[in-house]
Amino acid sequence: MPETLPNDSVGLVTPQVMAFTEPLTLACGTTLERHELVYETYGELNADKSNAVLICHALSGDHHAAGFHSMDDRKPGWWDNYIGPGKAIDTNRFFVVCPNNLGGCSGSTGPRSTKPDTGKPWGPDFPMLRVRDWVESQARLADALGINCWAAVVGGSLGGMQVMRWALEHPERLRHAVVIASAMKLSAQNIAFNETARQAIMSDPNFEGGRYLEKGTLPKSGLAVARMIGHITYLSDYAMGQKFGRELRSGSFLRGQYDPVEFQVESYLRYQGDNFANNFDANSYILITRALDYFDLAREYDHDPVEAFRHARCRFYVVSFSSDWRFAPNRSREIVDALLGAQQPVTYTAIDSPYGHDAFLLPSDRYREAFTRYMAGVAREVNA
Amino acid sequence: MPETLPNDSVGLVTPQVMAFTEPLTLACGTTLERHELVYETYGELNADKSNAVLICHALSGDHHAAGFHSMDDRKPGWWDNYIGPGKAIDTNRFFVVCPNNLGGCSGSTGPRSTKPDTGKPWGPDFPMLRVRDWVESQARLADALGINCWAAVVGGSLGGMQVMRWALEHPERLRHAVVIASAMKLSAQNIAFNETARQAIMSDPNFEGGRYLEKGTLPKSGLAVARMIGHITYLSDYAMGQKFGRELRSGSFLRGQYDPVEFQVESYLRYQGDNFANNFDANSYILITRALDYFDLAREYDHDPVEAFRHARCRFYVVSFSSDWRFAPNRSREIVDALLGAQQPVTYTAIDSPYGHDAFLLPSDRYREAFTRYMAGVAREVNA
Repeated sequence: MPETLPNDSVGLVTPQVMAFTEPLTLACGTTLERHELVYETYGELNADKSNAVLICHALSGDHHAAGFHSMDDRKPGWWDNYIGPGKAIDTNRFFVVCPNNLGGCSGSTGPRSTKPDTGKPWGPDFPMLRVRDWVESQARLADALGINCWAAVVGGSLGGMQVMRWALEHPERLRHAVVIASAMKLSAQNIAFNETARQAIMSDPNFEGGRYLEKGTLPKSGLAVARMIGHITYLSDYAMGQKFGRELRSGSFLRGQYDPVEFQVESYLRYQGDNFANNFDANSYILITRALDYFDLAREYDHDPVEAFRHARCRFYVVSFSSDWRFAPNRSREIVDALLGAQQPVTYTAIDSPYGHDAFLLPSDRYREAFTRYMAGVAREVNA
Repeated sequence: MPETLPNDSVGLVTPQVMAFTEPLTLACGTTLERHELVYETYGELNADKSNAVLICHALSGDHHAAGFHSMDDRKPGWWDNYIGPGKAIDTNRFFVVCPNNLGGCSGSTGPRSTKPDTGKPWGPDFPMLRVRDWVESQARLADALGINCWAAVVGGSLGGMQVMRWALEHPERLRHAVVIASAMKLSAQNIAFNETARQAIMSDPNFEGGRYLEKGTLPKSGLAVARMIGHITYLSDYAMGQKFGRELRSGSFLRGQYDPVEFQVESYLRYQGDNFANNFDANSYILITRALDYFDLAREYDHDPVEAFRHARCRFYVVSFSSDWRFAPNRSREIVDALLGAQQPVTYTAIDSPYGHDAFLLPSDRYREAFTRYMAGVAREVNA
């Protein structure tokens, strides 16, 4: 609990809700008659509305990207390291918008919301989503906020996929696409981890075919295992070794206990899993990992990413992290190669980091400097 | 089903059982009054009993390393690629012994066996095991077979850990230690994957605190998820991509299904998981992964692997595979470095392979040539 907020924090923030009453037809063919998005904004929108930056969140992210909800918060928003006054995404310069994605579980319409025709939670009946559905709903949010063109659309991991889709679907509505620790599509290994996580959730008897809210249960153990699997893939082997090593909690082996939690890494993972299971919605997790699996930037462009990127009209900034094995640097280089092939302007920074995929969230001098420099260039194009 | 057996097969083999009535005190302090090991042998023991090779199996392996149990078998033993007449472990030269480890579930005394004082299955009461317990029980099997000194002790992965422990605990009882795709201890990431797998098993309500056999249930879904997690770590990202890519089973996306199994890799993993869950024992899985986690070759040598290896008296052969990320090549180089530091004779082969950890089981020209050449040297020291 901070007694005073840090000087470089956006400070106390309050989520807002935007209700959309115009029907939204999704990629799967289903139409949502109405939906809501919860979002946060930081900084001030300038007179010609040219300084707006959209933040797209990743699998377990939400609209709370920076600042604090109350003085009692133990931690700030998930990207507070890089959003704030004087930070890479400088809220003295930019008006930052971060929505919780449709289908999420932090306030936007999703599986936990009430299905209008039944009065019960959507649960497993919530329509399957594609990354393009998020982009469309974000575009409607931009309309509602009067933002015709984003100074930049920015995201890491799954967020980066949304950024790339933005560049192809609404090429005139963003000037810069910032794609961090991302990929144009998942590998079979990525899909395999997601599928294993879904199996863990769906085989939990408390999952109840996805109708756990109606039944008054929660598939906590399945969701905890899913999170543990995910968490391992966000960290590098090195980072886990540095953080936990093979340290024993008791200092020595516990003999004869059937379920000893002896290694520090075990108790850390169990804590992470339990904590996540108490907060995240299982149907949202399934929905979002499926959107990840299905994402394939160039599928409709005859599987040619060069052809896909020919449709873009913005500048690109791509960042990768050396020890990221979920979306390895080579996946970013594929993006850069395709952009160069399509003769698009692109800047690429390969950050040397031992912290795996999570590095895109963590403090790092080199990353901060490079990211800040790029965003300062974006800011210079904007009227004060 | 082979109509005829391949020429380079050991052919039809029959498991044997050895009963040990002398009490065996385990590292955890518990004493097993009696126990049994099931094992297979291939080839003929020579007159001076100098041509015996011990095979140590890995996590999901067993005593059936080569050949067929019947003409109806769809597949031979798990290391048939490398054990047989004219193969790397040449059964024309060697007498090969492969036991199912204590605590396993393929016939040797383990959690599925009857606990003498209760008449019920041991289940979760089976004592926790260490790698050294396997080595001790294998040494007793050697005694029973009249084998004073192995020509070689050979193993991959967890099997390689047993080989290294053999070299330190019974330095005079082996002439060669062959350590393939192994490590001197697990990394925090390795432990994290094992812990996640155990959580998946233990949180399955059918696990019943490990007493599923008494309750007439089986924790199949938990065990399936555990296997899926393990399986991903045995394959490389590349190998999964080559095998499955992002191929869709239906050829196109299935809309509106809540639980579509669309990607080939999903159906493959589910099949692997279900198949394993029908055959393997959950308590054995927990027991064996804990032995893996606890293994730390140099712990009792003041955490100095050079000091540890000073106790060895055999020659070492170490093999690693370039794309193995479970026990990466660097883990093998650590073994080689420590052996060199201890002035022990060691030969190291770094195989360039795209197939991940599983490469130690798979056919590969380069691996076969190198492994065969080393073992031919071992055979030359043996009296015909």
